[in-house]
Amino acid sequence: MINIDRLKSRMLEMAEIGKTNNNGVTRLALSEEERRGRLLLIQWMKDLGLAVRYDDFGNIYGRSEGTDPNASVIMSGSHIDSVPKGGKFDGVLGVLGALEAVESMLEKGIKHRHPIEIVSFTNEEGARFTPQMLGSGAVTGEFSREYIYNRTDDEGFRFEDELKKINFVGDEKNRLDNVGTFIEMHIEQGPVLETSQQTIGVVEGIAGFSWMEVTITGESNHSGTTPMSHRKDSLVTAAIAIKKISDWAKNEPEGIVATIGKIQTNPDIINAVPGETSFTIDIRCPREDQFEQCVKEVKEIIEKIVNEDSLTYSINEIRTHSPVIFSNRIVATIEEVCKGQNLSYRLMSSGAGHDAMYMNNIAETAMIFVPTVNGKSHCEEEDTLWTDIEKGASVLYETLASLAE
Amino acid sequence: MINIDRLKSRMLEMAEIGKTNNNGVTRLALSEEERRGRLLLIQWMKDLGLAVRYDDFGNIYGRSEGTDPNASVIMSGSHIDSVPKGGKFDGVLGVLGALEAVESMLEKGIKHRHPIEIVSFTNEEGARFTPQMLGSGAVTGEFSREYIYNRTDDEGFRFEDELKKINFVGDEKNRLDNVGTFIEMHIEQGPVLETSQQTIGVVEGIAGFSWMEVTITGESNHSGTTPMSHRKDSLVTAAIAIKKISDWAKNEPEGIVATIGKIQTNPDIINAVPGETSFTIDIRCPREDQFEQCVKEVKEIIEKIVNEDSLTYSINEIRTHSPVIFSNRIVATIEEVCKGQNLSYRLMSSGAGHDAMYMNNIAETAMIFVPTVNGKSHCEEEDTLWTDIEKGASVLYETLASLAE
Repeated sequence: MINIDRLKSRMLEMAEIGKTNNNGVTRLALSEEERRGRLLLIQWMKDLGLAVRYDDFGNIYGRSEGTDPNASVIMSGSHIDSVPKGGKFDGVLGVLGALEAVESMLEKGIKHRHPIEIVSFTNEEGARFTPQMLGSGAVTGEFSREYIYNRTDDEGFRFEDELKKINFVGDEKNRLDNVGTFIEMHIEQGPVLETSQQTIGVVEGIAGFSWMEVTITGESNHSGTTPMSHRKDSLVTAAIAIKKISDWAKNEPEGIVATIGKIQTNPDIINAVPGETSFTIDIRCPREDQFEQCVKEVKEIIEKIVNEDSLTYSINEIRTHSPVIFSNRIVATIEEVCKGQNLSYRLMSSGAGHDAMYMNNIAETAMIFVPTVNGKSHCEEEDTLWTDIEKGASVLYETLASLAE
Repeated sequence: MINIDRLKSRMLEMAEIGKTNNNGVTRLALSEEERRGRLLLIQWMKDLGLAVRYDDFGNIYGRSEGTDPNASVIMSGSHIDSVPKGGKFDGVLGVLGALEAVESMLEKGIKHRHPIEIVSFTNEEGARFTPQMLGSGAVTGEFSREYIYNRTDDEGFRFEDELKKINFVGDEKNRLDNVGTFIEMHIEQGPVLETSQQTIGVVEGIAGFSWMEVTITGESNHSGTTPMSHRKDSLVTAAIAIKKISDWAKNEPEGIVATIGKIQTNPDIINAVPGETSFTIDIRCPREDQFEQCVKEVKEIIEKIVNEDSLTYSINEIRTHSPVIFSNRIVATIEEVCKGQNLSYRLMSSGAGHDAMYMNNIAETAMIFVPTVNGKSHCEEEDTLWTDIEKGASVLYETLASLAE
């Protein structure tokens, strides 16, 4: 249905740009490597006869005109920037998979009423400029141009200056417009499909997340002279909370997870009872009707444990985003395509953020996941079987063809 | 029995040197402040008619000759260096308390057969040059001169150069010699005496300690896309271990404690399951026959918990020192003095290291503890009631007088 050899060959050619010693990729947003990746993508789009443009955030669009140019745009794509020492599939698959789907359509002489646009969004990873998904957020009302242009990387370079440096400041008029549907194919970046031996994830939405920092305050004392019974050890209390939060998440429905990623004691020395311990919590929940309850329950766990130990605590909310629910109609369309192609699939939510999250603001959106070997991504070992990529791209192809009529 | 007004006045005069804004003291070893403290101490010793000398490590001795100059020396003292923003009692009390005891003896015309020496050891705190107790360790066979002279502080200054700078390089001949007994009075630095409403701690020994770093290795994964059931979260396993180690210590006999002071995850980011977590353990045990068993039991707890979670771990031994057991005879002497003075006292061990620990290598040793308000030391709030200091100094006085005959 699609040409996997052509898709594979393009993916491997793109992977040469920013290739690391261990066969991974470092192609940071607006870097020289990413500039070369952009030029290669544009070349392929032009070879295919697409109308190419880029907007004032450097988002690249390649348009295959529809028989009805005024019909809403069917858009598909992802991003080509990577994290440092990332993999060759994350993001790129969504862009080149869409390119392959369109090329297969044109090759077969399939006419489409709706215009189809392939998109590559700027700075999805957030690895160079925080936060993530600046390009898609910019064109969907999440961020102002001023905000984005003044983002700086760790070395102090501004987004706008770097965008100019690679010569990708396009016209504001070139931003996306009249988009009716957005489909993003992506690697799962988790182990669910592989473990359940299913090929396609039909993604119904993106988990909401709440990021917070908890600080527990006890009393710092000499580790040798303070009897156990006299201690107000903030780390021991934190340890109980960490275990309880993990147990709580294990008993919640699939898709709800909680992670403590950072922890810090004060004073941070070997022979003192820690008077203060801070740790972060990252809670994710895919369902709108459970999200706030999840955050509430985690906070109650902390409250209860800290009170039991007669210590005190404070919580600093870092960032929060409610669950994103994709379009039922698009999800159902993808599901039908999977059934038609006799592919094993599952309805699932994404635990990670993607450009589709913001595109859902303005268009009927859904995602297609393909399995990730060992669930590992954002690393050089990131891998997906080419047979799975072929199946995912075929689903994307048929979904786009169906929606574009 | 002793003159508390004189002792108090000297303690407060010494506390002016290196005084901090919050009424604490910063008088780091071999600093300009400590040099001034040394000169003040020497002046007081000379005023009392003592023979003053210092050795090649800057340890200061003031000798009151005995009627039998060849009899073994009865030595008492401690140190005058402090930690940064420390208190005015830690160390200084032992030196000036001994000075007060000797002055009271001389004042009363009490002859003593044994020579009595007051000592102030260099760099007890280990706050400037690590490790702790360099001066007492140097003259009791723990450290070589070369080792000590080449210790450097955080700014790269060498011990020997700094000792020269304050003009306190004495002759090797001046080191202590023929010491039969060593008594050190010190603040408890813990809450035991205060809580039990006892005035004097008769210290039978110093807890042994084992310092180690444990590293638990799981698997780092994306915090959003990795289901709880697929995680190998090193921090959750570490949290279970920390709680269990604390519970273990709470059930052990008095004096046995365990502390986790430092903890570090890797990668140390909010949205990743920590693949690796390292933490330190400081185990203390006062009894020789239990020390190794304690260390073994803690290691078994870790082994068991890590195995249950199917992770791996390694242990890096940082430093270890067996329990130090003081002289039964000296302990009994101090106990008799307490009884004679109708003072409430308890036999106890010290959880912290002191110069007495190394002096025990070469002399019959014991310590006298006085209560610490709220158990807090190594901080500006460090405090001990003057009435308790008077009682402690009286016990020291009578003990020295009794031993010196």
